[in-house]
Amino acid sequence: MQQYFVTGQAQAECVIRDKDTLKHMFQVMRLAQDDHVILVFDDGIKRLAKVIDANEHRLAIIEDLDENVEMPVEITIASGFPKGDKLDLISQKATELGASAIWSYPADWSVVKWDGKKLAKKEEKLAKIVQGAAEQSKRNRLPEVRLFEKKVDFMTELEGFDKILIAYEESAKEGELSALASSIKTWQKGDKILLLFGPEGGISPKEIAAFEASGGFKVGLGPRIMRTETAPLYALSAISFALELNQ
Amino acid sequence: MQQYFVTGQAQAECVIRDKDTLKHMFQVMRLAQDDHVILVFDDGIKRLAKVIDANEHRLAIIEDLDENVEMPVEITIASGFPKGDKLDLISQKATELGASAIWSYPADWSVVKWDGKKLAKKEEKLAKIVQGAAEQSKRNRLPEVRLFEKKVDFMTELEGFDKILIAYEESAKEGELSALASSIKTWQKGDKILLLFGPEGGISPKEIAAFEASGGFKVGLGPRIMRTETAPLYALSAISFALELNQ
Repeated sequence: MQQYFVTGQAQAECVIRDKDTLKHMFQVMRLAQDDHVILVFDDGIKRLAKVIDANEHRLAIIEDLDENVEMPVEITIASGFPKGDKLDLISQKATELGASAIWSYPADWSVVKWDGKKLAKKEEKLAKIVQGAAEQSKRNRLPEVRLFEKKVDFMTELEGFDKILIAYEESAKEGELSALASSIKTWQKGDKILLLFGPEGGISPKEIAAFEASGGFKVGLGPRIMRTETAPLYALSAISFALELNQ
Repeated sequence: MQQYFVTGQAQAECVIRDKDTLKHMFQVMRLAQDDHVILVFDDGIKRLAKVIDANEHRLAIIEDLDENVEMPVEITIASGFPKGDKLDLISQKATELGASAIWSYPADWSVVKWDGKKLAKKEEKLAKIVQGAAEQSKRNRLPEVRLFEKKVDFMTELEGFDKILIAYEESAKEGELSALASSIKTWQKGDKILLLFGPEGGISPKEIAAFEASGGFKVGLGPRIMRTETAPLYALSAISFALELNQ
């Protein structure tokens, strides 16, 4: 059944106001009176609802659903600004793969330079991609999208995490292949995990030192070299497998 | 260092003849006499080589390198023909994630209909994508690309595998979350594993029955619903984590 995210607290009856949601409900899906959908408000609970009045865009909640597909930990992925539209793919796939937040920061070796105006536009576009992906993959939570204009603002956020993992390509060459698995074994339910990725050129030695000084540690993601947009998808899949399938 | 796949057996000296490889070597990278590259012949061994004559495209092997980034098992992924260019993304990412072969077949619920001519063109395009991805991710083996025009030809290939896993979306709803992990624990080095995925609409009940009759069994890929192009990437990442990182 079609699912929609609605901003705010759940009410017995509600009127849909978000333009894109309205368009999808009443133009794409052509919902009519008594049609059923699932609504997800800010509390992350899925609720069965039915259309009361299609002209006024009014729906009524029927019942709460006991369905939670969220990861047991909250994972934020943070990629150094990558080239072109790669953040589109990262955002869509990371949402399907269970990320709680998708961040991007201006890394030392990022080729692109995005100013505040460009970033605001990009953030808006990514938020729409994430919402579509979250509705399609039936998430309970809408992942946050956040693009940092200044690295200093990004660095101050690091202290809010329980674990900070630095995806480091050279780890495999150094014979390090078990740090990710070892770390996952120590995670508690609800932990806030930050996974750091570089742009195409990688994470600079200066950045690695700064991340380590903030409590981060390097983890390898296997022997093969992955593109910058593939590494977060690998890490999220691996974590899902470890926490959700291999119990 | 730049890596190239070369068809055939390794020779002390060799002349490069593949057009795309020549273009990349001598126009993009502008290789000159004594420049070093890595060549990988059919045996999958990486060899350090140097340019002897840039005009004649002649290279000489210097030494074998002891570097293997292949998975301990051979994984073939087979997707039902998906819409649009999704096979491009699947092929590129599956190569980075270690697949041995990327197959696609006309599934009951595939929307697209591709005939032999279209398939041959598509196969050629995908083979180039795979070669680029394999060189960039420093694979020892070039994954095979194969698009089946007739499902009967695809079905007869199933008997060549040691394990056949059917990615089944409803598994999570049925409370099945451990079949993939349990199966992986039984795999032996060198096993040939087939992972079956549906197109956008999923695998039909008739197909599931046929795959099961051929020895396949259903596995879930976690609680979230993934798009058809995301599921193979999740599965490959999960398997890599289980076999290469979590030892």
